[in-house]
Amino acid sequence: MAQAGRHFLQIPGPTNVPDRVLRAMDHPTMDHRGPRFAELGQRVLKGMAGIFKTSGRVVIFPSSGTGAWEAALVNTLSPGDRVLMAETGHFATLWRELAERLGYLPEFIPGDWRRGADPDAVEDRLRVDSAGAIKAVCVVHNETSTGSTSRIDEIRRALDAAGHPALLMVDTISSLGSIDYRHDDWGVDVTVAGSQKGLMLPPGLSFNAVSDKAMEASRSAQTARSYWDWQAMSGPNETGFFPYTPATNLLYGLAEAIDMLNEAGLENVFARHDRHGAATRAAVEAWGLEVLCQEPRHYSSVLTAVLMPQGHDADAFRRVVLER
Amino acid sequence: MAQAGRHFLQIPGPTNVPDRVLRAMDHPTMDHRGPRFAELGQRVLKGMAGIFKTSGRVVIFPSSGTGAWEAALVNTLSPGDRVLMAETGHFATLWRELAERLGYLPEFIPGDWRRGADPDAVEDRLRVDSAGAIKAVCVVHNETSTGSTSRIDEIRRALDAAGHPALLMVDTISSLGSIDYRHDDWGVDVTVAGSQKGLMLPPGLSFNAVSDKAMEASRSAQTARSYWDWQAMSGPNETGFFPYTPATNLLYGLAEAIDMLNEAGLENVFARHDRHGAATRAAVEAWGLEVLCQEPRHYSSVLTAVLMPQGHDADAFRRVVLER
Amino acid sequence: MAQAGRHFLQIPGPTNVPDRVLRAMDHPTMDHRGPRFAELGQRVLKGMAGIFKTSGRVVIFPSSGTGAWEAALVNTLSPGDRVLMAETGHFATLWRELAERLGYLPEFIPGDWRRGADPDAVEDRLRVDSAGAIKAVCVVHNETSTGSTSRIDEIRRALDAAGHPALLMVDTISSLGSIDYRHDDWGVDVTVAGSQKGLMLPPGLSFNAVSDKAMEASRSAQTARSYWDWQAMSGPNETGFFPYTPATNLLYGLAEAIDMLNEAGLENVFARHDRHGAATRAAVEAWGLEVLCQEPRHYSSVLTAVLMPQGHDADAFRRVVLER
Amino acid sequence: MAQAGRHFLQIPGPTNVPDRVLRAMDHPTMDHRGPRFAELGQRVLKGMAGIFKTSGRVVIFPSSGTGAWEAALVNTLSPGDRVLMAETGHFATLWRELAERLGYLPEFIPGDWRRGADPDAVEDRLRVDSAGAIKAVCVVHNETSTGSTSRIDEIRRALDAAGHPALLMVDTISSLGSIDYRHDDWGVDVTVAGSQKGLMLPPGLSFNAVSDKAMEASRSAQTARSYWDWQAMSGPNETGFFPYTPATNLLYGLAEAIDMLNEAGLENVFARHDRHGAATRAAVEAWGLEVLCQEPRHYSSVLTAVLMPQGHDADAFRRVVLER
Repeated sequence: MAQAGRHFLQIPGPTNVPDRVLRAMDHPTMDHRGPRFAELGQRVLKGMAGIFKTSGRVVIFPSSGTGAWEAALVNTLSPGDRVLMAETGHFATLWRELAERLGYLPEFIPGDWRRGADPDAVEDRLRVDSAGAIKAVCVVHNETSTGSTSRIDEIRRALDAAGHPALLMVDTISSLGSIDYRHDDWGVDVTVAGSQKGLMLPPGLSFNAVSDKAMEASRSAQTARSYWDWQAMSGPNETGFFPYTPATNLLYGLAEAIDMLNEAGLENVFARHDRHGAATRAAVEAWGLEVLCQEPRHYSSVLTAVLMPQGHDADAFRRVVLER
Repeated sequence: MAQAGRHFLQIPGPTNVPDRVLRAMDHPTMDHRGPRFAELGQRVLKGMAGIFKTSGRVVIFPSSGTGAWEAALVNTLSPGDRVLMAETGHFATLWRELAERLGYLPEFIPGDWRRGADPDAVEDRLRVDSAGAIKAVCVVHNETSTGSTSRIDEIRRALDAAGHPALLMVDTISSLGSIDYRHDDWGVDVTVAGSQKGLMLPPGLSFNAVSDKAMEASRSAQTARSYWDWQAMSGPNETGFFPYTPATNLLYGLAEAIDMLNEAGLENVFARHDRHGAATRAAVEAWGLEVLCQEPRHYSSVLTAVLMPQGHDADAFRRVVLER
Repeated sequence: MAQAGRHFLQIPGPTNVPDRVLRAMDHPTMDHRGPRFAELGQRVLKGMAGIFKTSGRVVIFPSSGTGAWEAALVNTLSPGDRVLMAETGHFATLWRELAERLGYLPEFIPGDWRRGADPDAVEDRLRVDSAGAIKAVCVVHNETSTGSTSRIDEIRRALDAAGHPALLMVDTISSLGSIDYRHDDWGVDVTVAGSQKGLMLPPGLSFNAVSDKAMEASRSAQTARSYWDWQAMSGPNETGFFPYTPATNLLYGLAEAIDMLNEAGLENVFARHDRHGAATRAAVEAWGLEVLCQEPRHYSSVLTAVLMPQGHDADAFRRVVLER
Repeated sequence: MAQAGRHFLQIPGPTNVPDRVLRAMDHPTMDHRGPRFAELGQRVLKGMAGIFKTSGRVVIFPSSGTGAWEAALVNTLSPGDRVLMAETGHFATLWRELAERLGYLPEFIPGDWRRGADPDAVEDRLRVDSAGAIKAVCVVHNETSTGSTSRIDEIRRALDAAGHPALLMVDTISSLGSIDYRHDDWGVDVTVAGSQKGLMLPPGLSFNAVSDKAMEASRSAQTARSYWDWQAMSGPNETGFFPYTPATNLLYGLAEAIDMLNEAGLENVFARHDRHGAATRAAVEAWGLEVLCQEPRHYSSVLTAVLMPQGHDADAFRRVVLER
């Protein structure tokens, strides 16, 4: 079937890229060792700190979000280290598999994929790890596969209550810039993010926000690393440069996207998503359908998963969406 | 000083990005799991095989060229493996440092940075490695820091003459699509490439072309890896997909750039660069200056380094270039 | 109120410009006296003949649609000439006022703005003009102000039945490329068109399709003219050029838009609009509202005007549309 | 011959359009009756007054520059009116032919195409017109065909010295925004301009700057007119609107181009062109060639015409330029 008009992505991400961002990206590539680049580099590093709500360090990689998952682990852990992860859905599972491939020992707190991470289960597990074998706790903030958003503030309190020294790592790939998130206030050690969702960019950039504690851990971590190495980034980043060629044109788009978020006001953007999420759930309820997420406190503002009713075929439904 | 008009990059790379490529890149991001993406993925994978002149496998990473250096090593080597590298200049040195950081044992064949890699020295070194401790020979095809192009066909013959089983790895980041290159004919096992030079794209994509022998090596290599893993790419790539989110908009640009190279004809593109290189060297000679590269058979067609005459200041010269 | 996302025009025109057309337009301006321009000029002139369904001449002006109204009259009429016009709505009224300002004597067949032009009234009026004082009959094909589409084939038959020699002029500014139209088959002498509706371009180009009879009339017409003169266009147009500087970048977009219409197939485009129009009227009926057009044979496929119910305020409604 | 790289216009105009302007133009077309358009309209009308250096009225037409020539005449003259024009070159000749076609009586002060207009000749001719039959004096500021720039301040003084009431009309199509020009200070009544040269836009917009005296003349001028009518523009322009559909996307580009000129500073832009013009003439002299313009006070800063030496073929030369 021939299709006329403008195509809109009907998927959880990559999201629609605003024209302002596309236009910003299609300028000629500049010298990444020259003075104009230094301004751009400082602008996006500082701007991203604002989005993460951190006064600490931000690292930007020319990679997809998966790379920032990997960077969080290889900079802070040594081969064989134990990692506690919360099974919130498909992306939590992918992160666990990645940890295994890299030689770590992930342990899953099982979940039913219908709610966010359980802070009590985290606390219970950490309390019995009196030897401190667990080096990191990893949680996906917003699970794209389920529409559940974990309460990171509560996970932080779970670590504190258990008095456990593990690093707290949070994947915000599908929440940063869309749902309230506070790297510093919530005591997160490594936040993982990507360009293609709330930041309104095409895929190709990923991010770590890094606490002093995590940076300290990276000094003794024994995993061999080069591309993802935070230390190598530190020096050049101070003046707005990068140790190897950055994805310059995506950084043009990033600068524009940060401006757009700040012009709108982050809190206003969050409120808009909250309103849209509530509207979507109201529609689902009115249609007599069931939202996948069963815990109202974990409803995602940016994504609502709906159960396909008995007797209907999800593949057939998706085919109609795609064709029409 | 206020500057009017269009800025042109005056550096060896990133190169000027044609408007056709910029326009191709600024289209809305599409679903990377949908049928239209499958067409795009197959088109760029097949197109890049043509540029590499290989009938084998091509791997595309959302990363800068440095990532493809790392991928070449981590897919084929085990911690502690010995690697023979030719010191042709700054980039060969960076690749060596990267190998060290990743836990390998690089050994440098020393060079004076005024010519390409020496096949005789490679052959001599390999002949004395009767135990086969050296697992890979790494050469930078075109050294951006010196303007010398190594003869990869001669390096191949050196390995063959020595009867040595090491993998041959070649960095073509600043030559692919600009200088004659033949992955299959020259028996290269892993070719490393990036988007921002002969491929006329912004930085953000990197490539490996992989021989069957290298693919076989990757099955037993013991380096832990995830983002760079070739095996994980294989299955999805068969139908044009990727195991994690690709840099979709850069792939739009890549498809356009491949079309442009094929429309012009790769051999015509090479001939144009050869002519421009010869013209540049003629000008340097007419000005009474000295070309850095001392071996005419290694003159680079894409880059001519010129010695700053005694009594002149390179920094002052660059400042004038930048300002004017 | 801050607005996020992409703005969509919610007005009858200018219409949404496809990204393909915007991208085509933003290429560097070329020399309008060079050989590449000649190809472009011939391509758009020939392409527009296909859209008008004429084997005759097409004239392209760098102007808005109003200019093509003026061109139709000043090329064929002499000061004081009498013109018969059908009052179908606001745009027919504007065309009449324009004719008066230019020194002609327009005569209106009155209408109630709730249907298209009445062929019987045209025939009756022409029959009593045995002296042939009326030099042209002017009809707006699709009235943007009312959503009524006149039957041009029936108007043609009215002229034929009356045996009257007047030129038939038709304004297709809001119908060409969207609703079935046939310059040659329907014996139209001058068709008037603009770029910003069915041709999917920004405003800035206008068109005349001209019959041999109208071209002949232009040889003796006494209105002084220069910018709009068809004769001056004829020579340069033969080789794809224009007598004065054309709006080159809008012509880039026009070439692309013609390609898009032909790729989709004009008849498929018409069918799509017919379907959308029927869907819109079905919705209006379901809401218990009244379509302005009272004659089903004159329903417009591209525009449906709806009566504001008693007790409601159109300005208040429009304000909501604009803000939300 | 296949050509690689970016094409640069090598002609006097249309000039190269900056990327900023192309990007500004390729945004979605907006409603030209809505509040955002009103802001744009007021911005460009006010901005153009600054470029013309007038506190009076500016009129913007969706047309090429030829239209603004026509508008200057039809708004102020009546059929049969006498116009004094200075023969400075090809474009002065075209303007004269246009005046004839529109029914006026142009009289040429002959010139040799190697200098600007002669103020003494203008004064002499006006002195003998004691009856005031001459209604307008028309001068091309910068003659694109010869590279001579007339001194408009001296022409103004010639009218004043003769005590003649004729309107002074000046064509600045190839000078506005590039060479010093002062509508008010120099007592010009109608300035004619186009978008595709100093304003750095594609062709498709034209301009009149209009003195109170010219506006007064338009109230009694008897030429029938509609598209070009200043009076119809006045009302809507006050709030930023236009009486008929404007060329919206070109106006986006105009707003950007005005910003660019103001950011650089008009006087700095003029100085840059002066410097480039002097450099070009120095090169011509060094090559032993002859500049067409023989009067140094009339040298054009934006365009240098060079005589083809005996025994050489201009067409052959242009062919080489085009191909290489």
